[in-house]
Amino acid sequence: MDIFTAIHSRRSVRAYTGEPVTTEETRAMLDAAMTAPSAGNARPWHFLVIDDPVSIAQIPSLNPYAGMAPAAAVCILVCGDLSLEKYPGFWVQDCSAAIQNLLLAAVGLGLGAVWTGIHPLEDRVRAFASLFALPPNIVPLALIAVGRPKKEQQRLSRYEEEKVHYNRYGQAWKVN
Amino acid sequence: MDIFTAIHSRRSVRAYTGEPVTTEETRAMLDAAMTAPSAGNARPWHFLVIDDPVSIAQIPSLNPYAGMAPAAAVCILVCGDLSLEKYPGFWVQDCSAAIQNLLLAAVGLGLGAVWTGIHPLEDRVRAFASLFALPPNIVPLALIAVGRPKKEQQRLSRYEEEKVHYNRYGQAWKVN
Repeated sequence: MDIFTAIHSRRSVRAYTGEPVTTEETRAMLDAAMTAPSAGNARPWHFLVIDDPVSIAQIPSLNPYAGMAPAAAVCILVCGDLSLEKYPGFWVQDCSAAIQNLLLAAVGLGLGAVWTGIHPLEDRVRAFASLFALPPNIVPLALIAVGRPKKEQQRLSRYEEEKVHYNRYGQAWKVN
Repeated sequence: MDIFTAIHSRRSVRAYTGEPVTTEETRAMLDAAMTAPSAGNARPWHFLVIDDPVSIAQIPSLNPYAGMAPAAAVCILVCGDLSLEKYPGFWVQDCSAAIQNLLLAAVGLGLGAVWTGIHPLEDRVRAFASLFALPPNIVPLALIAVGRPKKEQQRLSRYEEEKVHYNRYGQAWKVN
């Protein structure tokens, strides 16, 4: 699939067919995620591949916006590793770039995914860290639910000209 | 270009031919950026398209890792807009997803780009905010330098099996 088609047809997919996601597909998503840029190429991340129904059943009670998790074929918990940072404070950006790669890889594989937030909500961070036995230096950033989408996604643009400025804030970018 | 080729051939490109980037190419990168997911679809971002040589000449003194900026065809300053957040605290993740889309779009256009960090370094935030006359609710996250790359990038994987865990932290993911 073309890169622009993937970017523009990626949507938050919360309804799945129930078909499995293969190990090869999961590995391709993780490979894409880990090939993201990071500050100093520190790669301060870890990924938990979660398909244990007992754990997954608890996720909606930890995050009310993750109610789709039990219907997903697999969940991926994306975590920062504070002990790996070369430039402290950049792990959220690094892990977010990895997640965006993961979401686009899902689209490229014909899968659908949704990014559900954890950090910086402290209660939610503690709850996920406890459920998945994370050490103190490992901070859960987001849970990504993945499955085969029930419906095909159309191409979309969210371009807003008023959010583009030219050389200084408030000066319009005259593209025509 | 295929989505996986784009993801795996994206590299931090700091050497450019000096050829221009067209307005259409810049617009395609911004369109990709703004089509990224954001918490509550709040899209809490703004983008400054910068090609003014007087401003760009000052950038390396604000960030020693942005020494390539004067050689780039265009720089894009990616900012969070704190007044647009629906779920406070998620703007860094939202803007980082937008940046990753922008970087991949650059690859898809045959361009090369590099992500240079600003937030959360307070001195650097203040310096960029001052140079580009940003209002108080607009926080510069990163400056992206873009140009035509001097050399072609090979496909790369940074996959690390030891960063993948299965169902709980520390349990290996047995993929074979």
